[in-house]
Order: sequence, then C-alpha cells, then structure tokens
Amino acid sequence: MQLTLYSDYSIRVLLYLATKNDSPATISEVAESFQVSRNHLVKVVHNLSINGYIRTTRGKKGGMTLGRSPELICIGELLRKTEPDFRIVDCLGSEPSRCPIDAVCGLKFILKGARDAFLKQLDQYTLLDITGNKEVLRPILIRSLPLSG
Amino acid sequence: MQLTLYSDYSIRVLLYLATKNDSPATISEVAESFQVSRNHLVKVVHNLSINGYIRTTRGKKGGMTLGRSPELICIGELLRKTEPDFRIVDCLGSEPSRCPIDAVCGLKFILKGARDAFLKQLDQYTLLDITGNKEVLRPILIRSLPLSG
Repeated sequence: MQLTLYSDYSIRVLLYLATKNDSPATISEVAESFQVSRNHLVKVVHNLSINGYIRTTRGKKGGMTLGRSPELICIGELLRKTEPDFRIVDCLGSEPSRCPIDAVCGLKFILKGARDAFLKQLDQYTLLDITGNKEVLRPILIRSLPLSG
Repeated sequence: MQLTLYSDYSIRVLLYLATKNDSPATISEVAESFQVSRNHLVKVVHNLSINGYIRTTRGKKGGMTLGRSPELICIGELLRKTEPDFRIVDCLGSEPSRCPIDAVCGLKFILKGARDAFLKQLDQYTLLDITGNKEVLRPILIRSLPLSG
C-alpha cells in the first residue's frame, strides 16, 4: 500500500516552495534539487496551480510561489486531491463492484474505517509542520541561496 | 492508495472458509465463487498455509479449512503478512532513500503515524467480525451447500 509518486512529488514541490519563502522557483530547479524527472513535475505543478496551492508568474523573474501560507495547506486535504484512488479495495470505489458479496460484506466498512483513520491523522498536519526546520532544509535543497531570508 | 489484489484475495479465501465452517474447500471452488482467476489464488493459498491461516488435507475429501478459529485471525496482522509493501512512500522502506532531505524530513514521521493509525484500526477486527452474517453470505458464496450447518 503506497501513495503514488504523483502525491509524493506534489508534497515535495510545496515543501520546496515553503523552504524558499516568497522567492519564485522554477520546475527545473525543484527537479534538480530532488533529483527527479522534470517531466514528472509538469503535471504535478499544473494541478497544484489549478487547486490554488501554488501561484505562477511569468517573465524573467517569474516562477512558482505558494498560493497560500504553509499553515493553511493541510496534508490530508492535499492528498485527497492528489491521490487518484483512495478506495483501498475495489468495492470502496465509485463504480459498482463485481464482488458477489458486495452488498452484504462487512470488510468494506472496516477498511473504510482504516482509510478514514489514515486521513484523519494527516488532517492534523499542515505544510508548516514539515517545514518548521527550514534552516536545516534550505542548505540541502537550495544550495545557491543564502541561509537567511 | 490501494491494497494489492494479493491481500484482497487472501481475505476472500479466509472469508470463504469461515463461511463454510469445517467443510474443506478447493481452490477452484473459491475461484468460481468469487469469479476470480484460479491461478491468482494458488500463491495466495500457499502463503496462507505457510503462515498457519489455513490447513490443507489431501485425498478425495481433502481441501482447505481454516488453520485457526475466525476470532483468532486478526485482519491487521493478516494484512501485515500479505501486503508486500506498507511503506506508503519510498523513504519508509527498509532500503536507504535517495531523497536528499531524508535525514531531516518531517513528512515521513507524519506518514508513518497515518499508516500506524490505519493498521491499528484493522487490529481491532478479526475474521469473525466479517463473517458474523454467515447465514447471509453462505447462499451467495456456496450455492451448493444447505443453509444450515
């Protein structure tokens, strides 16, 4: 049971931007910093933008910045948007299940409860909680930037 | 985020056997009942047997039965054995992560907490909890058997 790379990368982009404060970042810069493919990040960034998590500005000094303060970016809420499939098993999806005992199965409610517990836990945290150690993250992620600022 | 079919099928096999009480079942029978591939079930059954969840007997009247009482088969414990990868993200795995902020990242502990909450929830339930409605399950799953017994 794993989150998709798509969700993983979405968090990394936001973490990078929070670490960089209000200074705009490019996709290439984030890709290079985490050593991941730039192509993978393009769609991630596009959807983060659509959902208001990031703001993009054009031009020579343009780039991405956070669309809201880190304390307003809830990890649980974010993952509900980025993860394409939180159904855990087929029968928790929106399409009708082909399992013959679907209508009378007690397992699905137990698994639903476990999924809810997973997300409830994540609802307690925001981007601020994972970037509280910005001074430590910054020299690792953003090597060209000064430590302060 | 989904469980593997392997875990899904493991639960279905046990649920089927619990529904059938102590009457032995064949792999083909379970496959037919749930309309899944027999081939998929062979490895599932093999590992359930290795882990003591089922007992197999040879011969004309042989087959699989539960290796322990349904109330002793904990869903959380079972999934820890069947799910090949509960790491949620790469950095929660046993191999060293390639993420540059691995050593200082706060996210992994948050995700670990969410995974633990997921499993803790499942630890509260046993196979008995999902087969308490045996009388309803039986005519759907085991059409050739009488309702009682």
